[in-house]
Amino acid sequence: MIIFEQPPHPGLGSAVNRMFYSASLATILFLLTQVTTVYADEGMWLLNDPPRKLLLDKYGFELTDAWLERARLASVRFNNGGSGGFVSSGGLIATNHHIGADSLQKLSTREHDLLRDGFLAATPADELKCPDLELNVLQEIRDVTERVNAAVKPDLPADQAFAARRAIMAEIEKESLQQTGLRSDVVTLYQGGLYHLYRYKKYIDVRLVFAPESAAAAFVGDTDNFEYPRFGFDVCFFRAYEDGKPVRPQHFFKWSPDGPREGDLVFVTGHPGTTNRLETLAKLSHRRDVTLPYTLGRLRALEAALTQFSERGPDQRRMAATDLHRVANARKAFGGQYEGLLDPAVMRQKRAQEQDLQRKLSEGSDQKGQQAVTAPWLRIADVQKALATFEREYDLLERGDAFFSQERVKLTASLTLLAEHLGGNHRVVEAVLAGRPPAARAAELVDGTKLFDPAERKKLADGGVQSIRESSDRMIQLALRVDAEARRLRKRYEENIEEPERQAYAKIAQARFKVFGRAVAPDATFTLRLAFGVVKGYDIEGRKLRFTTTFAGVFKRAAQQGHREPFDLPQRWLQGKDKVDPHTPFNFVSTADTIGGNSGSPVLNRAGELVGLNFDRNRHGLVRNFVYTDAQARHIAVHSRAVLEALRCLYDARALVQELVRDK
Amino acid sequence: MIIFEQPPHPGLGSAVNRMFYSASLATILFLLTQVTTVYADEGMWLLNDPPRKLLLDKYGFELTDAWLERARLASVRFNNGGSGGFVSSGGLIATNHHIGADSLQKLSTREHDLLRDGFLAATPADELKCPDLELNVLQEIRDVTERVNAAVKPDLPADQAFAARRAIMAEIEKESLQQTGLRSDVVTLYQGGLYHLYRYKKYIDVRLVFAPESAAAAFVGDTDNFEYPRFGFDVCFFRAYEDGKPVRPQHFFKWSPDGPREGDLVFVTGHPGTTNRLETLAKLSHRRDVTLPYTLGRLRALEAALTQFSERGPDQRRMAATDLHRVANARKAFGGQYEGLLDPAVMRQKRAQEQDLQRKLSEGSDQKGQQAVTAPWLRIADVQKALATFEREYDLLERGDAFFSQERVKLTASLTLLAEHLGGNHRVVEAVLAGRPPAARAAELVDGTKLFDPAERKKLADGGVQSIRESSDRMIQLALRVDAEARRLRKRYEENIEEPERQAYAKIAQARFKVFGRAVAPDATFTLRLAFGVVKGYDIEGRKLRFTTTFAGVFKRAAQQGHREPFDLPQRWLQGKDKVDPHTPFNFVSTADTIGGNSGSPVLNRAGELVGLNFDRNRHGLVRNFVYTDAQARHIAVHSRAVLEALRCLYDARALVQELVRDK
Repeated sequence: MIIFEQPPHPGLGSAVNRMFYSASLATILFLLTQVTTVYADEGMWLLNDPPRKLLLDKYGFELTDAWLERARLASVRFNNGGSGGFVSSGGLIATNHHIGADSLQKLSTREHDLLRDGFLAATPADELKCPDLELNVLQEIRDVTERVNAAVKPDLPADQAFAARRAIMAEIEKESLQQTGLRSDVVTLYQGGLYHLYRYKKYIDVRLVFAPESAAAAFVGDTDNFEYPRFGFDVCFFRAYEDGKPVRPQHFFKWSPDGPREGDLVFVTGHPGTTNRLETLAKLSHRRDVTLPYTLGRLRALEAALTQFSERGPDQRRMAATDLHRVANARKAFGGQYEGLLDPAVMRQKRAQEQDLQRKLSEGSDQKGQQAVTAPWLRIADVQKALATFEREYDLLERGDAFFSQERVKLTASLTLLAEHLGGNHRVVEAVLAGRPPAARAAELVDGTKLFDPAERKKLADGGVQSIRESSDRMIQLALRVDAEARRLRKRYEENIEEPERQAYAKIAQARFKVFGRAVAPDATFTLRLAFGVVKGYDIEGRKLRFTTTFAGVFKRAAQQGHREPFDLPQRWLQGKDKVDPHTPFNFVSTADTIGGNSGSPVLNRAGELVGLNFDRNRHGLVRNFVYTDAQARHIAVHSRAVLEALRCLYDARALVQELVRDK
Repeated sequence: MIIFEQPPHPGLGSAVNRMFYSASLATILFLLTQVTTVYADEGMWLLNDPPRKLLLDKYGFELTDAWLERARLASVRFNNGGSGGFVSSGGLIATNHHIGADSLQKLSTREHDLLRDGFLAATPADELKCPDLELNVLQEIRDVTERVNAAVKPDLPADQAFAARRAIMAEIEKESLQQTGLRSDVVTLYQGGLYHLYRYKKYIDVRLVFAPESAAAAFVGDTDNFEYPRFGFDVCFFRAYEDGKPVRPQHFFKWSPDGPREGDLVFVTGHPGTTNRLETLAKLSHRRDVTLPYTLGRLRALEAALTQFSERGPDQRRMAATDLHRVANARKAFGGQYEGLLDPAVMRQKRAQEQDLQRKLSEGSDQKGQQAVTAPWLRIADVQKALATFEREYDLLERGDAFFSQERVKLTASLTLLAEHLGGNHRVVEAVLAGRPPAARAAELVDGTKLFDPAERKKLADGGVQSIRESSDRMIQLALRVDAEARRLRKRYEENIEEPERQAYAKIAQARFKVFGRAVAPDATFTLRLAFGVVKGYDIEGRKLRFTTTFAGVFKRAAQQGHREPFDLPQRWLQGKDKVDPHTPFNFVSTADTIGGNSGSPVLNRAGELVGLNFDRNRHGLVRNFVYTDAQARHIAVHSRAVLEALRCLYDARALVQELVRDK
């Protein structure tokens, strides 16, 4: 069941109107039962354009500048795709174990598998420096929309407009970096409606403080992914350093020893990756009918190839495990999105919203005026038709789906995918396969390359274009064979898709601002956002799910399945079972609006204290790429009390607990 | 490495010519090393048109009428898709365990799981009658080509020609049944070049005599499927009864206590299902670029859905196991076929063969004559273009790929597949989904049908069309929604694809007969065929694989993997390890030409004794749907000596051994 409401504003029409458009019986029933709470908790809000009035009206919460400043300066972006937050005056940072996993793997040695066995630094001197982790903390946001738009003259042809926009954005970033020394990114908001300059403080000396065993962090791993009730101890602690000393951050989130209660208003500050909620109906139809079927087919092909490989024996199973997990996870996520777009109620609502906006814009216009209003939507629809004619080639050859990895199994699968989509007689397929079927060609390529060797890569890079052109390395030769075609596709994409879409969306965004103001948050862009929601459980197939799980639950679930993989809790947990209070809350859910990229996000209470760490959505939340829903969709977080309980009773991490609790 | 030779005949040209066409270096090298054996063992030969001269020339073997008669009358077709043979004067029949599995499942009770635990009838009275197993033994073949062709006037429009052909075939079958009381099937050979009437004796009282545990029969199940070295005890014994007494068959195969030796000439009599070797290049290109990518995508989608379901817990895993095995098996088989068609050397050879035949036919013709020669090939190419415009709809809606099973998981997957291929706005997709996304719709359909209940089905059938039209059963209502469209697609397929292809292939077949005579066997049609080959191992990635495995090997492989599933041999085997001679051969391979449907086929020596039971191909043999190869491709059989050894030493099946050995 899905509810599509935009945040409230005077012009949106009544709940009855909305019911008329959303003819799905389930939706109507839901709306009928929810008329008292017509304001949904949608929105991944900009920190410089927060929903103050909404929070005040709905929750009686006054969002102060001080609260916002702390949220901004204590929130941390993990550049490998996650979020986190400062949690002590000593520069301690909390995030998810699965966001830290990459560093754990790199810090592991043959003797010490930190990913499997976990880690606890006994003293500050024992903290382990991560080889290549970059963290960002947002210092400032500036609106540069006018300057960007001024540089792109309205009558420029698409290729020149694209180049002009890219140039001015690069110029602004470069200038800002020179002026401030801060990492400076121009962020495109509302698909081109606004351009903001984000300035970040960078931390590159980041050290590992604590990680649990992966069997506890990702308990029941793949099986429970996107499910609830849930029992993940998905936590990891790092510390930021500068000049060899722990950072003293301007702000940090106090660790709440109690965590949230049912019905509490909570906030999530983090870096949601991508949503598509402001895309037009034509764009979403294109995603549904062209992009997602292709993506699902690609992921299933990889999954089948990896499964077949991992069946050969225990060694192969171990080798393929990480990839298989990643691919199956993506397949589930995209499958959920696709199921969402196939819900006619979702598309009907999208159409109703679009028509509503167009109607409001056209009021009092003559025919010509009405045509001008709908022009950007029609432009985007036309662009999708153009995109459909070469999107697969673009994805395969330029995005590189056809050349996935330098490893036989995945390369075979992706070369096969190339042939499946373009056909065996396609000139690029013939050039790529070079007279061999995919498996034989993949073997030939992998055996015929030395690019695995950094020294070899350096030699090639030092030799410049000439040495690359003359290289006898088979992978390089393959790249040369597709380079011209890939460049042609990229140019076609930039000029015929990206630039016209950007221009049309900019017009739609301006139109929406005109009618609704900033009552709608922009789509996610992996930049800092503020979401809010209520801690509450939900019903599923007649069953009531509580807002929280407990330590008792995790032990019960492991025991029920005989502690067999993936239900195999670490020994430390099994042996320490009697030391923890079984009633301690473990994970909890809320309605706040999150998406991939929010992993590790601090969950905060009204006081700005950290009450949890977000780590997943349930499967009902997968459709949130396109529409917000809070009937069953929830984000899932590790409860702040669970972290203290486990650190105290199972990990004997007294100094760490001390640091978290000291800073009250 | 693949070799494409057709059986030899005067007009085919020299090995050097063939080398010219097959420019693949590997192929050329192979041919250069093999010039002394230019005659390959290709062919699934008709019993009434056997390769007598070929066998005499290449192997000095005289194929007598008596040998052929025994092969025909001792071979048995299992109508669930396999083969077998009489192996005693008392009506005992040997086949594969995986061919008997269906009966084993049906004969199992809550207390006795015959599939898992196996079965041995202590006395004849203990033999278990199979509920619905039909066996066929071929009595006679008659050529009815002229009569069929005479009924289809050459100038009829396609729809009338199709109807006329179907009518005459039905008439011939009905007439023959009335005359002889034998099951009578008109079989289309050479894609329409010949029509033969096959008359079978039917056995419907078939009883189970012996089956091993499935862990022994399908040792290392999915993992080793299509692999070699191999250790499958894939054996099962039934007995045919008539009038409540064991059948005394006219002929049976004597069980060889020794089995084959390396280099032996062996024969396989069985019922290969489908090959596509005589299809035109245009048809094979269509399979490669349209049909197989669709099929692979469909299987992977099912596999992903079943995998996701089975991850929910041990119960779900057990429930999904059989389906998952079947789907993964098919995905592997079609993947092998696709890889084969992507080998440019295969397609080059196909083109060369086609051009060679056309050239020979055109010799001395003027332009008009040459056009007449190539006309049927061009017709088939045109038909593929027409097919490409609606094949997916045909497969989804008429063949039923969109409505796979009455069970939620698979139905969700196939409804999703429907939307992925036709798009969310397609009118049939909208009609089928009826306003719900796939998972919700599947749940609604499964919950809203009583068709699982035989009484409900009978009631509907008794009520006739009217009761079906008025049914409130959701599945029936769904069927009614797509019925008209499905019928339209079927008609379109019959008239625009099937009939024109049939006519064009008939012309090509006649042309081929004119040039080459019957030196090329027809494609497989799940009717009795004779294949032959040599027992020999092969090299793979520098490793030499022996022609046979041993009992020592099976115990070693199980031990190496710690006897964990799927390496978990039955207790009987582990405990009886010391009772068997470890050097006894277990499985063996030969070059004989087999395909799916040959499972359970008797493998015979020159004397017509049974030396093995065919049960699989290796993965190099997967391409045999399109081309014969014997460089590495092998069929795999259970060694006749292995069966005696296991029956004696592990199963204590003295009476059964007695019966097999007595009849010497």
